[in-house]
Amino acid sequence: MTREIPDIVIGRLPIYLRELIRLAEDEGKINTSSHELGKRLGISSAQIRKDLSHFGEFGKQGTGYHINYLVTQLREILQLSQEWHVAVVGAGYLGHALAHYHGFEHRGFRISWIFDSDPEKIGQQMDQLVVLDVANLEKVIAENNVKVAIIVVPASHAQEITDRLVAVGVRSILSYAPIHLAVPAGVEISYSDPVIQLQRMTYYL
Amino acid sequence: MTREIPDIVIGRLPIYLRELIRLAEDEGKINTSSHELGKRLGISSAQIRKDLSHFGEFGKQGTGYHINYLVTQLREILQLSQEWHVAVVGAGYLGHALAHYHGFEHRGFRISWIFDSDPEKIGQQMDQLVVLDVANLEKVIAENNVKVAIIVVPASHAQEITDRLVAVGVRSILSYAPIHLAVPAGVEISYSDPVIQLQRMTYYL
Repeated sequence: MTREIPDIVIGRLPIYLRELIRLAEDEGKINTSSHELGKRLGISSAQIRKDLSHFGEFGKQGTGYHINYLVTQLREILQLSQEWHVAVVGAGYLGHALAHYHGFEHRGFRISWIFDSDPEKIGQQMDQLVVLDVANLEKVIAENNVKVAIIVVPASHAQEITDRLVAVGVRSILSYAPIHLAVPAGVEISYSDPVIQLQRMTYYL
Repeated sequence: MTREIPDIVIGRLPIYLRELIRLAEDEGKINTSSHELGKRLGISSAQIRKDLSHFGEFGKQGTGYHINYLVTQLREILQLSQEWHVAVVGAGYLGHALAHYHGFEHRGFRISWIFDSDPEKIGQQMDQLVVLDVANLEKVIAENNVKVAIIVVPASHAQEITDRLVAVGVRSILSYAPIHLAVPAGVEISYSDPVIQLQRMTYYL
């Protein structure tokens, strides 16, 4: 995949997709416009048209976008037509919350495995999953050709787990550990740290 | 607070701060350089110098930055010298995880209240907190002059809770609900949706 399209554009596509699905499923709409979508998302309609123009011509002057068609196209662009099986590493409170979160369904992902190193957690049931021994991480990842993982281990273990995941083929990592992680080229990493997000906002208080 | 400094610059300051604290506390370092910091964060040293130059002159040619001094300055800029008391709305799995998360301490925040509407959850103990009735949300927020809140309610309730928080003075909201929320000018909102983050990455797979 080339990097000709800016990362920031790619980053907005899932937000458009989420709002389009909402328009269709929750509000029963068939068509929308860049104007309507932009107003709902606080993004200019010109920005939305420009972002989508990287990938083709999805709307018509006057009638706007056919929502289901645009949803299908965005899912294809983001490679969400298939369902990605996701490994979660760490079965603490947050891993537990992720295992029980049903927001992944129908959005392209399924949490299929959860790992921990704590003997008291291994074998425990979490929603539909049983906590696996992290000693078997490489085996499970390799056998199932897993490409996507979520890290919810303490900062002190996050780099080691990242290295192990990458070594057996994981290419997309979402990390909740409050630490910057080093990954080789070709591996995407994304972070979620509530404190970083809160600190950015207190500047404006 | 003026918007003269780009949001994206403000967004990087907490990341610098986190890494500086790591260098000092975990590795015992006294000084660092924009080069070292940049290498660890995958950000160019020129970018770091440019970002920091918005706020003053923190380093010296040759000796670089004195870490403790820069940490103190960044904390002041981000208004983290005080501790912000945070209200969490929603005591589901994720609210539970947040209540037990000790990563807020020493980073400027303390989860001081957690609310829910479920009679079975109200009164329940979560780490140091007792789940409060969301009917008392406005009273608690107003009496304690709370400015910062975290929303972990279902998408269907997130806008209503946002409106209620904003009406009684909350100005910084971190939302885990998978929905775009409308807030008036002067209120900062930040989102955390693991699916949006994963979807951005599958594009590159």
